[in-house]
This record gives sequence, C-alpha cells and structure tokens, in this order.
Amino acid sequence: MAAPQHFSTLYLSAPDVIALVQRKGIEPCLRGIADYIHADFLRWGAFDKSARVASHSRDGVIELMPIADGETYAFKYVNGHPKNTRWGLPTVMAFGVLADVATGAPLLLSELTLTTALRTAAMSAVAARALARPGSRTMALIGNGAQSEFQALAFHHLLGIDTLRLFDTDPAATAKLQANLKGTGPRTVACTSTAEAVRGADVVTTVTADKTNATILTPDMLAPGMHINAVGGDCPGKTELHADVLRQAQVFVEYAPQTRIEGDIQQLPADFAVTELWEVLAGQHGGRASDAAVTVFDSVGFALEDFSALRFLRDAAAELGMGQPIELIPQLSDPKNLFGLLHTRSPLLRVVA
Amino acid sequence: MAAPQHFSTLYLSAPDVIALVQRKGIEPCLRGIADYIHADFLRWGAFDKSARVASHSRDGVIELMPIADGETYAFKYVNGHPKNTRWGLPTVMAFGVLADVATGAPLLLSELTLTTALRTAAMSAVAARALARPGSRTMALIGNGAQSEFQALAFHHLLGIDTLRLFDTDPAATAKLQANLKGTGPRTVACTSTAEAVRGADVVTTVTADKTNATILTPDMLAPGMHINAVGGDCPGKTELHADVLRQAQVFVEYAPQTRIEGDIQQLPADFAVTELWEVLAGQHGGRASDAAVTVFDSVGFALEDFSALRFLRDAAAELGMGQPIELIPQLSDPKNLFGLLHTRSPLLRVVA
Repeated sequence: MAAPQHFSTLYLSAPDVIALVQRKGIEPCLRGIADYIHADFLRWGAFDKSARVASHSRDGVIELMPIADGETYAFKYVNGHPKNTRWGLPTVMAFGVLADVATGAPLLLSELTLTTALRTAAMSAVAARALARPGSRTMALIGNGAQSEFQALAFHHLLGIDTLRLFDTDPAATAKLQANLKGTGPRTVACTSTAEAVRGADVVTTVTADKTNATILTPDMLAPGMHINAVGGDCPGKTELHADVLRQAQVFVEYAPQTRIEGDIQQLPADFAVTELWEVLAGQHGGRASDAAVTVFDSVGFALEDFSALRFLRDAAAELGMGQPIELIPQLSDPKNLFGLLHTRSPLLRVVA
Repeated sequence: MAAPQHFSTLYLSAPDVIALVQRKGIEPCLRGIADYIHADFLRWGAFDKSARVASHSRDGVIELMPIADGETYAFKYVNGHPKNTRWGLPTVMAFGVLADVATGAPLLLSELTLTTALRTAAMSAVAARALARPGSRTMALIGNGAQSEFQALAFHHLLGIDTLRLFDTDPAATAKLQANLKGTGPRTVACTSTAEAVRGADVVTTVTADKTNATILTPDMLAPGMHINAVGGDCPGKTELHADVLRQAQVFVEYAPQTRIEGDIQQLPADFAVTELWEVLAGQHGGRASDAAVTVFDSVGFALEDFSALRFLRDAAAELGMGQPIELIPQLSDPKNLFGLLHTRSPLLRVVA
C-alpha cells in the first residue's frame, strides 16, 4: 500500500477572494480571467460538456454546472432569486470546486459570488474583442445593477471603451453605478431611456434582472455595425431582445444546446442559425461578416467559464499564498479501513475529554 | 431595503463529523439516519427527483446528486475511483450541501465520506426491515471492505442480526472487519467462499468493489425466504447478481429511472418489473409476497438518502453545538451593490497594510 497522502482541500472564502482581487487589482483580474477563458475556449473539444442541471421553485432556481477535461473537473453551485434583495441577500450566490479527474479528490473550494460577476464580464469582453467593430469606443449599458460595474470595467480595460451611456428603470441604480465608477477611467452619461442610451453606441450591453420575456432592445434601435452583448436573458422565460433583433443579426453563443433553452434565442425555432464563439476564437468561423453587420453575443453563462475562473483563482491564490487548507475529506491511515476513523481521537474530543 | 442578514454557512469538516458520531455513538447515528430516511421516503411525492449527473473518466467517475422538496435543496459530490487506495486515498470521497429553496442560500456544507457509509447502511436496514423475513438473525456479508462494518452494525442494531458469515477474496479484509467488530455485539464466522457464507443465511448483503459485471451470487445459492441486500452493483458495468437471481426474486429499488441505469437490473430489459421501496414503506405495496419468496433490494444510492443524512447532521450538530460558520457567501451591506465589496477593507488586507 502506498503511504497515505496528507490530502487537504484549499478553501478560498468570500473575504479571501475580495482580498485577492484587491491585492492583484481588478484590471489584472479581469485580464487574467479573460486569458484563461480564451485559452480554455481554444481547447473546446477537450471538454465533457453538458447543459446545467436546474431545480426551479416558486421564487427562483438553484443550478449545478459541471464540466471536465481529462485532468480537471469543476462544478459551480449558483442560485437566481430576484426577490432576495428584500431580505438583504444577493440575487445570485455561488461557490465552486475544482477536482482531480484521476482520483476524484476536491482540490479547491472557492466562493464564486463575486467571481461570477468577474468571469461574466471577462467572457463578454472576450466575445466583444472577437466580434465588435475595431475602434469601438462607446457602449450603452442597459441595466445598472450588481453586474454593471464589472461589465463597464471589462469593456474599458479589455476593449478600450471610454464612454458609457447608462440607463436603468431605477435612477438610483444608475447613480450607484456612476459613484462606483468614479475615478476608474470611463466617462459616464446618464440617459433617460434605452433608446437614448443606445443612440450612437458601438456596443450595447444588456444586463437587466427581471425574470420576464422583456423587449429591452427593439429593431428600430439597431444601427449598422453595432455589437450587442446580451447578458441578462439567461433562463427559460427571461429574455431581453425583440425576436426581430436576433433575426436581423449574426448571433453567437457559448454552448448552443444550453443557449437554445436559456438564451434570447429561446424565442426562435430550434434550427435558427447560430455560431458557437469558440469557432470564431479558433479561426474556424470568420465572425463579423462586415463593418455594417449587427452582431449579437447571446450570453447565458457556461460551466467552462467557471472552470477557467476557478483555475485563475487557484493560480492567483498560490502566487499570493492565500486560502487555507480544510479537511473536507477525512485523512485515512489505511484507505481501506474507513471504519477505523471512528477509533481515532479527534482534536475536538481531546478538548471535551 | 431590508436590513442585511449576517448570513453564514455552517461547515462540518471530516474531523467534526467523526467527533459527532463518536459523541452520539454509532448506533444512535445509524438509527437516527434510518429514521430520517424512512420519514423522507414517506414524503416521496414531495421531491423534485432526477438521476445523478455523472462524469466518467478512465479511472473513475465524479457525480453530482441534487434533490429538493419545497423547502430544502441538497446535493452531494461523490467520486468512485477503485484504484485510489494505491495512492493512499479512499475509493469514495464525498461532501454535500443543504440550501434554502426560498433564497438559494447554502445553509450547511458537510463532509459526506464517512456519512455516505452510514447512510448506505441505514438505507439497507430500512429496506430490510420492510422486506426481510421477521426473525432474521443470520446475515452473509460478501465483500469485507470499507462499507462492511457499517452494514454489519446497521443490521445488528436495526434488524437484530446476531451472526455474520463473512467472505472476501482478500482474507486481510475479513480479518480487518473482524477486528473492527470485536466487542460491538454480532458473532462473526469467516468463510472460504461466497457459497459457504450464504448457506443458512436469512439475509445476504453484497458490498463488493470491483468495477466489473461480476456474478457474486448465482441461482444455486438461493434459499426460500432469503432477503438479498445488493449494494455493490451501483454503476453502469458494475453488477453483482446473476440475472437469474433477479428473475427468480421480487426486486425492490430506490428510484427506478436511476436503478435501471446503475443497478443490477441494468442486465435486464427496461420493462422488467420492479417496485420502488417507498411504495412498501407507505403501505401502497404489500412487499414480500410470502415467507418463501426471495426478495432483492437492488440498492444504488439515491440523492434522497443524502438529503436525509444532511438533515440528520444539521440537527445533530445544532444539538451538540458543533461545526463552524464560514463565509462562503459574501456579506453585502447593500445586496444590490456587489461591486461595493471591493471597497471594503478585508481582515487580511488590514494585516498586510
């Protein structure tokens, strides 16, 4: 028998990840996660992919999002409960695990509430770098809630967006976004309608939260060459784009089987033509057809992005010496003798005895 | 806005659960988990059930097992890697989470490696209490590995089994089992073959580990009135019973859609008649047809058993004041302002600054 490994799982709490992002800086974190996502999307064929497993209830949904390549397995737990802010809780809460495919051992347990916002914004920027018109400088940002600052900064740092035209049905949300962005770089303009915000924008990002089939963007708002980053339509019954916006555009998605269920394209027939983004990144699809084309990234959030974000966190935590080892899995002196665990004297028992 | 909740997740590490079982005692834990399982199986219709989500690789499998009723969501992460003992790691490692359906907040994170062995044995005893002949006193225990002590003690305490006839292809495993059971109550008899062990047994429990289509039990070993507790045939390609054993018996399962994929009945056509155990527990099915009938519980391990075990752990931890609160989810002073987290000064930063 091999000598028993003193195996432990690295734990990154929410305060740990906040401190990690503060120490590295938000721009390096967004760039880093974007690089990991880009690299993993280039290895698309190496992954065992599936649509997420959702448990729907009256007030929300709880989902598990697993994915694996030959070496590493990851999953994310994430909820979506629009009414949560009434009880002082975030609408979306998440955590995730990286595990070793060869043994099944969980290597990293991390908060993913903050990280999900970072990886979603990084994913949007990766897509826009491939799809938006070169030289895009102005972005309309529709929906100024919990995700909006991350989108704003990802597009500022990774795409060169210098002007943000903001709209939210709640002016307090726009004021919060402007306050949070003060001193970070991009110029902000508060608008009084979606139509006003979209006017003259090179990129339009929609990150609204209502769990309804909404039509935030209508065909009359489109301009030639626009790139639409549609983030908020991400579960059955929750869409943001008028169906004709999709029909008039080139539509790009993360993982088509999942997006057809959850994305804005849920409004359209199952054979509506879409392109998976990895094909563009890998050079297998030309992407934007012309400077005048309208492109849509119908983003829903795919497990691979969390896999990439967890890899980034693991490497950043190692670099900074952050996190703490936890015994989520018992240490066995003889792995064939699980029952023997009950003959050990635990630290707690020593205190009690 | 509601005042923010100071929300935390209760964490039970592997050492915590070992100490919990030591403090309560293994018999009260087996009885307690069996009671929670029995109560939850009586509420069968209240659960949102699905077969587990498996990621197969060369050396093993990693699975997620979610389930929910209207109030509580649970999932387990569990692997199965038969070669792990070579590296000093357990074959099966697990952890799980209980969450609040109304908000999606994770309430409990617990080790489930030790707990899976306890709940599997408790489940077997719950089934045998309903299916075995009254007055059963002798059990053959085929496969004397990591699960065997738990099965032995569950049947001793919950069913009144006083004699165990043991067989394993590795005599060292049998010796380990006998050593671990010394002083716990049941008499043990080491046998030199499955056929010898099974002779005269009222109950036959198979908990072998090989990931092969094995035929541990063949029809010639059957005796009238026997109850077979088939635990080790639990994933595609891994079976323990000769198909004719199943054909000559009344077969009971946990959740038929999952067992048809993973259980011993994977060898038989999809319309082979089986009965879900909850029907027997709820009095909707008569169970054993006669004293002479052979009954089989084709157990694969269903998410509801982990749901029950996690509920038991939560209540036992509350009773004993065990576990520690962790910040897996960030504390937000304003839940609509996720970005505001990055303006907080974390404890770690205070140390560094």
